[in-house]
Amino acid sequence: MQYPNGIKKSFKNKVSYSNRGMDLESDLNSTNEYYRLNDIAVIYKKPTPITINKVDYKSRNDAIIREAHFKIPSTTDYNGVYKGKYIDFEAKETKNLTSFPLNNIHKHQIEHLEKIMNHGGIGFIIVKFVKLNKTFLLYIKDLLNFISSNKRVSIPLSYFEDYGYIIKEGFNPRLDYLKIIDKGVYYEKEN
Amino acid sequence: MQYPNGIKKSFKNKVSYSNRGMDLESDLNSTNEYYRLNDIAVIYKKPTPITINKVDYKSRNDAIIREAHFKIPSTTDYNGVYKGKYIDFEAKETKNLTSFPLNNIHKHQIEHLEKIMNHGGIGFIIVKFVKLNKTFLLYIKDLLNFISSNKRVSIPLSYFEDYGYIIKEGFNPRLDYLKIIDKGVYYEKEN
Repeated sequence: MQYPNGIKKSFKNKVSYSNRGMDLESDLNSTNEYYRLNDIAVIYKKPTPITINKVDYKSRNDAIIREAHFKIPSTTDYNGVYKGKYIDFEAKETKNLTSFPLNNIHKHQIEHLEKIMNHGGIGFIIVKFVKLNKTFLLYIKDLLNFISSNKRVSIPLSYFEDYGYIIKEGFNPRLDYLKIIDKGVYYEKEN
Repeated sequence: MQYPNGIKKSFKNKVSYSNRGMDLESDLNSTNEYYRLNDIAVIYKKPTPITINKVDYKSRNDAIIREAHFKIPSTTDYNGVYKGKYIDFEAKETKNLTSFPLNNIHKHQIEHLEKIMNHGGIGFIIVKFVKLNKTFLLYIKDLLNFISSNKRVSIPLSYFEDYGYIIKEGFNPRLDYLKIIDKGVYYEKEN
């Protein structure tokens, strides 16, 4: 379950990672803002999906939601347009050192990314290994390849190293993931 | 301000338009569902943006939002991918008979659609004249042309007839707006 910025933090370990950069969501939001301000791409994080049960209407423009629940998202968190192409991705952090547990991503989010790919969009996941301070972009085709050829419930770090692309951390933009998209989805990695 | 399905209805006139079809949002949601189920396009309505102030955490997976406010959306309501192209639009109903008041669309939503167009995406608005039961698609380029050459605060119906495209109502899909996209954004209307 994905909570909006700030609220998620209540659950977090109190260990500070501040000298290793902000959390992934903040980094991606500031990167996307950089892309928009510099007219590079128009990519946003979608609002958190909720179900509203009770609303107080003081007036038409001053309504207070009094009861609502977080919904399981049917799509991914981020989408937008870059050089005419549709971009769609999900971003997750893990505190694990050696693998990324697949249950961090809902099955229908993976199915969603597969559909995006089939319709000519560019779908991927961004995974940050917080304790290693390494952030990878993994295209949906490679995520699907892993799932179809493995029975493992988590993706080893080595798979990200072999099939994913490191997103280098910078000052501004923080995580320039479009640089990887520029290489092309079917760009073959040199090993 | 756009409220989520159901809640909006509290404000509505009690006159039933049921024999003239459902409301625009329901029609578009069912159309998008049709597109997804038939593997034609992947287009969703975004969740309603809110600011959350108070949350009760019973457990990690059972949180109840106790106070939240509707936010003014910075983007449009619908986006997705169709034949590799990025699609982005805002949909509005009006009860007016002869014109569509421009204050129905936030200034930053128009600016957002302009950016989408500049980045190679397909941006437009869908406007339904409820009492005429006519629904139009108007590309952002034609909306911007109207705004830059007019000081009027509303777009006359005749402008939609001249520069927009009628979306015919059907059984399923209800409003096949992608049929218009198929003609191409720069398709010249015969008059």
